[in-house]
Amino acid sequence: MLSDTMRSFGKNACIIREISAYGAARSAQIGAENVFDFSIGNPNLPAPPAVRETLVRLLTEMDPVALHAYTPAVGLPAVRQAVAGYITETYDFPVTMDSLYITEGASTALAMVFHAVCQEGDEVILFAPYFTEYPVFVRAAGAKSVDVPCTEPDFQIDFNAFQAALSDKTAAVVVNSPNNPSGVVLEEATLRRLCAILQEKEREVGHPIYLISDEPYRDLVYDEDVTVPYLPAYYDDTFVCYSYSKNLSIPGERLGYLLVSPRMRDWQEVFAACAGAARTMGYICTSSLFQHLLPACLTERVDLTVYRTNRDLLYGALTEYGFTVAKPSGAFYLFVKSPEPDAFAFYEKAKSREILLVPSDDFGYPGYVRVSYCVDTDKIRRALPGFKALAESYGL
Amino acid sequence: MLSDTMRSFGKNACIIREISAYGAARSAQIGAENVFDFSIGNPNLPAPPAVRETLVRLLTEMDPVALHAYTPAVGLPAVRQAVAGYITETYDFPVTMDSLYITEGASTALAMVFHAVCQEGDEVILFAPYFTEYPVFVRAAGAKSVDVPCTEPDFQIDFNAFQAALSDKTAAVVVNSPNNPSGVVLEEATLRRLCAILQEKEREVGHPIYLISDEPYRDLVYDEDVTVPYLPAYYDDTFVCYSYSKNLSIPGERLGYLLVSPRMRDWQEVFAACAGAARTMGYICTSSLFQHLLPACLTERVDLTVYRTNRDLLYGALTEYGFTVAKPSGAFYLFVKSPEPDAFAFYEKAKSREILLVPSDDFGYPGYVRVSYCVDTDKIRRALPGFKALAESYGL
Repeated sequence: MLSDTMRSFGKNACIIREISAYGAARSAQIGAENVFDFSIGNPNLPAPPAVRETLVRLLTEMDPVALHAYTPAVGLPAVRQAVAGYITETYDFPVTMDSLYITEGASTALAMVFHAVCQEGDEVILFAPYFTEYPVFVRAAGAKSVDVPCTEPDFQIDFNAFQAALSDKTAAVVVNSPNNPSGVVLEEATLRRLCAILQEKEREVGHPIYLISDEPYRDLVYDEDVTVPYLPAYYDDTFVCYSYSKNLSIPGERLGYLLVSPRMRDWQEVFAACAGAARTMGYICTSSLFQHLLPACLTERVDLTVYRTNRDLLYGALTEYGFTVAKPSGAFYLFVKSPEPDAFAFYEKAKSREILLVPSDDFGYPGYVRVSYCVDTDKIRRALPGFKALAESYGL
Repeated sequence: MLSDTMRSFGKNACIIREISAYGAARSAQIGAENVFDFSIGNPNLPAPPAVRETLVRLLTEMDPVALHAYTPAVGLPAVRQAVAGYITETYDFPVTMDSLYITEGASTALAMVFHAVCQEGDEVILFAPYFTEYPVFVRAAGAKSVDVPCTEPDFQIDFNAFQAALSDKTAAVVVNSPNNPSGVVLEEATLRRLCAILQEKEREVGHPIYLISDEPYRDLVYDEDVTVPYLPAYYDDTFVCYSYSKNLSIPGERLGYLLVSPRMRDWQEVFAACAGAARTMGYICTSSLFQHLLPACLTERVDLTVYRTNRDLLYGALTEYGFTVAKPSGAFYLFVKSPEPDAFAFYEKAKSREILLVPSDDFGYPGYVRVSYCVDTDKIRRALPGFKALAESYGL
């Protein structure tokens, strides 16, 4: 019989997609050049040339039967080995291919983990603000999400709230740094404290509390003094959900991986549960063409100077106009405090000036808007007068 | 806490994949030319030239930002429109893009449907023999699968068993024709009778009983007098789960669609539930490159004469040697009765002659082996003496 839960997930679609669809429709009405759409995190930079070159080479040189064949569900051995080598070398954290499952982006990896480590009645702690889809994945896995707010103005973790939220029902905790929607990077001291608390709680409750690190923006960091610690080195019961969507500007192709830390207790059993979860969702394998692409592109990056320029331009202007903005070290988002308590009202006022932002309620943290700056620098420049007028309309 | 169900799905992996892995290891030991691996349904024909040409053209001519961008979760409008046009024209069954969700193959579509239309305690009827993964999908959706055997020797539906299995708990019925593992096509008379029974039962129980048509092999039919009826034209509450894996020989790329029949009651609500299920599984979209490929390749096919030759050769030889084989009109499988009751014992004897078959127990129908003939014709020829010796060893 039709599932009301699934129907509700389908009908109340992601607000970001809705605003983005409005932007497309509005562009058709008044011209794309007149709509300042900062709603969706769809990279505007072309993939590095090696992506096209490698894909064309594979298509023209490789036997098509082998190129497009089913791969093992976990991924091609050579690809998993290449990724394992990259992780081992880059993070000085030794892993083998046996810890790696090649996935259709980080979202798939997240859904697999939640279904693997959650049972009915379990709780998963989310640090707000967070990616809109986490609560959907958690609820579908039969668990309940528990929000823990950040501290302001630094957008780190409110540890009092975290300690209060932790319980013997806590199955997992999700970290996303650089953060979507805030662009903030969690400091090493924050993460050390988080891991220490988790270790103590694990001892107290006598079962694993998994740390799930969602890392689509790991390599999009714009300040040289900012580093993104590698969590498996800090806490044994860690999963890493990684995506190549942003690094390689191929978000529509769905390529990423799940790492089950080899330091995790019974990690092979946990890996089997993740593989089992993938199987129940009908995952057969990640695109074989894009798997073959990966070894040649592990160190490739889009031109990050463009995103850095956009960030500097927009952050500089918005703070100058009087907006309060979270310190944006990474990803391609600014998190701007709404000048009035209701972020939807602010969103509507910006929309009336053809500026499309995302009100933050669905990120579990009301009172802000997200500004995606993965757009043309020129468009940002042309949007500034509108932002300035908005600020003035609030008397900032 | 770790899910035992998921762990068990991960550890007890699909037997086909296991035998295929053995085949690869054995090939490394004694040479691929000496291993007659009929285990996996991995197409051995190259994709039609249009696949390579179109992919290279897209990569070299299209803006990479647009080419690799996120698409709507349901798929690109132009792609959905093209598929809707193809279905409308080919099956004389009018559909619009609103009924179509572009998926990562038929498996994803199946998983979506089961999660959308099943609730805890529901039952799903599977006609044995069936694809090994159906029971996994059904159980993950909280439902229970109920097996209904086929009739012999024609491998149609045992309607007495079907009537006995139908109940007010029946949420869905799965049909797969041409069938994996048997290669048998269900006759129109069989399907008419099935649909009539379902219609009557729907009226009796007062809720929809969905018919799920899993169609990865729809276009792989080798006899001119055999047709595959289009089920949405026969029964309103029908889903079609389609895959381009076999038609285009791109199984590793994951491309297919879900059709929610527009004749279904409340089809838009049902579609929303399928979309919601996709969301919970972390599906963001199907590979954007392969979506762009599709409109140019809707009528492309691999060279089916090769599969037909293989079928004729193998079916002719095996029946001549005395084996009992289901009439193989489509797909690329033969379903051969084990000369002894235990198909595993027969599998082992074949294996000792380097012939790899799949015992049928995991297809829900013991006592047979599946022979996948999507292999080189020459390899089939060279395997025949082994099959003959096997038959003789049983005194056939």
